[in-house]
Amino acid sequence: MTTETVSSYPVTPRNRVRRLHERGSYDRAAVHHVLDAAMLCHVAYVIDGQPYATPTLFWRRDDTLYWHGSSASRMLRHLKAGTPACLTVAHLDGLVLARSGFNHSANYRSAMCFGTARLVEDPAEKAEAMRDVVDRFYPGRSALLRRLTAQEAKATTIIAMPIEEASAKVRAKGVGDDEADFALPIWAGVIPVATVLGAAQTCPRLAEGVEKPEALAIFPAGGRLDAALQAGQRLYEGG
Amino acid sequence: MTTETVSSYPVTPRNRVRRLHERGSYDRAAVHHVLDAAMLCHVAYVIDGQPYATPTLFWRRDDTLYWHGSSASRMLRHLKAGTPACLTVAHLDGLVLARSGFNHSANYRSAMCFGTARLVEDPAEKAEAMRDVVDRFYPGRSALLRRLTAQEAKATTIIAMPIEEASAKVRAKGVGDDEADFALPIWAGVIPVATVLGAAQTCPRLAEGVEKPEALAIFPAGGRLDAALQAGQRLYEGG
Repeated sequence: MTTETVSSYPVTPRNRVRRLHERGSYDRAAVHHVLDAAMLCHVAYVIDGQPYATPTLFWRRDDTLYWHGSSASRMLRHLKAGTPACLTVAHLDGLVLARSGFNHSANYRSAMCFGTARLVEDPAEKAEAMRDVVDRFYPGRSALLRRLTAQEAKATTIIAMPIEEASAKVRAKGVGDDEADFALPIWAGVIPVATVLGAAQTCPRLAEGVEKPEALAIFPAGGRLDAALQAGQRLYEGG
Repeated sequence: MTTETVSSYPVTPRNRVRRLHERGSYDRAAVHHVLDAAMLCHVAYVIDGQPYATPTLFWRRDDTLYWHGSSASRMLRHLKAGTPACLTVAHLDGLVLARSGFNHSANYRSAMCFGTARLVEDPAEKAEAMRDVVDRFYPGRSALLRRLTAQEAKATTIIAMPIEEASAKVRAKGVGDDEADFALPIWAGVIPVATVLGAAQTCPRLAEGVEKPEALAIFPAGGRLDAALQAGQRLYEGG
């Protein structure tokens, strides 16, 4: 295995960045950095020729992505070999207002991952995934919860997709006007956008004397969601 | 045309909400409300059997969705009849921490729209779309900008998709624990999430004496992006 194989995903016609390719990267760390800042992704799959983009919670364990069952699970039950899928994450970071319509843009971080999605059927892998779906986001929380029942496990479908190819694409800069346009009397600038956390709303039926666990301090009121999720991923990987 | 046809999208196997169907709606106003709160969507399409979920800026005009060209444009140039696509929007509104892993959830608003995507080739429709991509987000802005050149128009591909079927799905509530679990000594609650605007960063090369246009007041620092975009859509529809 060469260094290139370890640090980058392979580049094929499927994941090669076509538009504005100077914004693209196939670096594993760059792709993981975008993925780990998100809880919500969109998974594309095909049923009978019809594409679906399904929004869902997901998490990453090494180079495998996991999510809960969706309409695809019905299909996957009949497709033991799995089905091609594409899992995408995108963060909007800013609105970029230029001096021409053509140069209007957005700041963003995105990652597209390609692979073959399969149902997680092995009981041990499934049990681990059902702990991870809690602990990856809320470090150590699964141990504090009422245990999963056999019926709940049966009612849950988990889908796994090892990343075969991936790319990340990032725009993070100011207005990119044509040189001749900068002098025009037109306002231009960037309006930043961020997804932030509010103050936790404790369940009104909380049992007396129960405190909020220390581990949830990674979700401070006013903090950024992406930073909290990246901190959670580091704890999950270290744990 | 019956009232039902006017106010709701048809329900077919393609858009019928399967999981947690009590959260679903086929109401046109409900679907538009979710769409109009977003600038970023994910479009799913299929090329040679491979699904793609591509993040992109989009906008709505009546029951047609528009977005910029993507890798699909190459394909669409050869497919005059268009190609099936699915355009999805999802807003994450909160993290829901329950007393069991099974009842952990998220608050969200999502919309999935199905139709046939086609290249916009008619010059008049294309010119209108290229104004709309600015004015839908920034009311009245296109009139203030340096005009589009013929070369820029040629370099831009616009894709249109009339909505044939759609559904909206919303979760907006507190912790939904099993009745027996509420008494357990486990912290539970909701951590709200919102996407907000920062203070506008004026381009450092702004021509002297240029003021920020009044119309951009719909994007106040600290305001919510979804509310700003909904306000912009109302102005765009009224203009």
